Amino acid sequence: MQLIEGYTQLIEKAIAKQQFQGQPRNLYEPISYILSLGGKRLRPALTLAACELYGSKATEALDAALAIEIFHNFSLVHDDIMDKADLRRGQATVHKKWNQDIAILSGDAMLVKAYQYLAKVDTQVLPAVLEVFSQTAIEVCEGQQLDVNFETQDQVLEADYIEMIRLKTSVLLGCALKIGALVAGASSVEAENLYHFGEKIGIAFQIQDDILDAFGEPEKFGKTPGGDILNNKKTIMMIHALNHANDDQQLHLLASNIQAAEKIKTVQELFVSLGSKAHAMRVMDRFYQEALVHLEKSNGKDALKKELATFAEWLIKRDL
Amino acid sequence: MQLIEGYTQLIEKAIAKQQFQGQPRNLYEPISYILSLGGKRLRPALTLAACELYGSKATEALDAALAIEIFHNFSLVHDDIMDKADLRRGQATVHKKWNQDIAILSGDAMLVKAYQYLAKVDTQVLPAVLEVFSQTAIEVCEGQQLDVNFETQDQVLEADYIEMIRLKTSVLLGCALKIGALVAGASSVEAENLYHFGEKIGIAFQIQDDILDAFGEPEKFGKTPGGDILNNKKTIMMIHALNHANDDQQLHLLASNIQAAEKIKTVQELFVSLGSKAHAMRVMDRFYQEALVHLEKSNGKDALKKELATFAEWLIKRDL
Repeated sequence: MQLIEGYTQLIEKAIAKQQFQGQPRNLYEPISYILSLGGKRLRPALTLAACELYGSKATEALDAALAIEIFHNFSLVHDDIMDKADLRRGQATVHKKWNQDIAILSGDAMLVKAYQYLAKVDTQVLPAVLEVFSQTAIEVCEGQQLDVNFETQDQVLEADYIEMIRLKTSVLLGCALKIGALVAGASSVEAENLYHFGEKIGIAFQIQDDILDAFGEPEKFGKTPGGDILNNKKTIMMIHALNHANDDQQLHLLASNIQAAEKIKTVQELFVSLGSKAHAMRVMDRFYQEALVHLEKSNGKDALKKELATFAEWLIKRDL
Repeated sequence: MQLIEGYTQLIEKAIAKQQFQGQPRNLYEPISYILSLGGKRLRPALTLAACELYGSKATEALDAALAIEIFHNFSLVHDDIMDKADLRRGQATVHKKWNQDIAILSGDAMLVKAYQYLAKVDTQVLPAVLEVFSQTAIEVCEGQQLDVNFETQDQVLEADYIEMIRLKTSVLLGCALKIGALVAGASSVEAENLYHFGEKIGIAFQIQDDILDAFGEPEKFGKTPGGDILNNKKTIMMIHALNHANDDQQLHLLASNIQAAEKIKTVQELFVSLGSKAHAMRVMDRFYQEALVHLEKSNGKDALKKELATFAEWLIKRDL
């Protein structure tokens, strides 16, 4: 993962250098603020990696990578409003630190800023880059809307859940990789194949995240597990468990008049005894394997393919 | 105004044909809904007019014109959330008819859709078209943020007010014209000159709107006048009046413990006696004249220049 770590450092330095100095200040300060909160910078690092995979220097894709990271943070600012989230990466969310109007408008400005960075790519690849970026941006909106809709929906099918996480999370990983490949001059077939690597690994990554949310060790996962369980969130495990539970177990899975720690423990045990955790791990592994098939097909540089394979493995084998 | 009316009909038909049929439906229905509420379609009509001004067919700029109209409606959807507006063109606003989450997300999707329509322009002009569009989009956000900030600001200078309406309203008129010119292959100097025509006429138009909001006849203006007065909105007239009022008059201008009709009447009288209405009309006329100078300089087709001059006159001489 040395290369990927090098890319994330490149991104980190580039972000620190960006000036969002327009007026009025309360439109621009939230942009610098949310970008300064960190995060893993995985998406823009993938853009740089894909660019090197096809023989160009990582720095050539730097503006496109920043566009991806700014877009990702735009979606966080608006999602945090909808989720009524107070904290993001341990700090106050934009709508909490400022207010909701500012969070809406700064988010809008970030979406436009993302297009401004993207428009710096070579004119020759600009139409193709814009196409995948806009399509992805729309799909991320669709995914977020589906996620919101699922909250009040009695039944969610596993296929619908996977489609939701594909749209909300994984298409942006595919897009980040595809744009890096396009900037490096890769063919559309190659770029599309790499997109699917990102798409599949993104789904595996999100399922892993759901498993970690239920079973992760706090000191390794970075937050207290059980959030999804307490919110009765219809993750792949909850959907599986509800489908396999008897009436009494169903009540336990959705119980709300119960102490938090006890609820988490009960549901964790049901996720295990009903085979829901094992099922989630199998599905995750299926998408992981599919991702590797796409990576293998790539005709990019071997060193970078190996690096991306290591990265993929790291993504889905984070501390359990 | 026959040509402009023809363009607005072209836009109206094109909008009726657009299908926003993605899933989930509650992300896409608000897009069709807000676009179906009508409006004058002035901005996209200007894009078509500018395209014909430089010798191309209006239809060649149709996608770009739709991008402008979709962007304009995106900004209305998000502004209505911030303004807590229940009605837009006599119908429920998106956040009222659905909810706030949907209004945020549908708005985001519309902004992306606008870029998708815009990306259909000829590759040769795409970078220049993207540049003015993104710059304008950012400025519209800045204008809206300034407008929100002014609400809680004790003192607003006239210059700041004019800068706010330039950003919030008039740059989009300039952008609409410039993009039409670029699509038709006009030089950057010509396109920029036409931009300034739109920018100046847009400021005149907004000042006219402020005057109509205070003095318009309801049956002609389309809404009951006095809204800005009741909200103590710092329009150009209010700023002028506060600067020229004695202490007693100041209290009347900002009074809130008074019946609505009486407040409107008192403030209208003060706007007249303090010379604020006359001042606003002078400033409006100054921008109108500056706009005409830019139009005169254009080397576009005479018939279209005449049409745009008639349009400009109509814009700022609406029923008073």
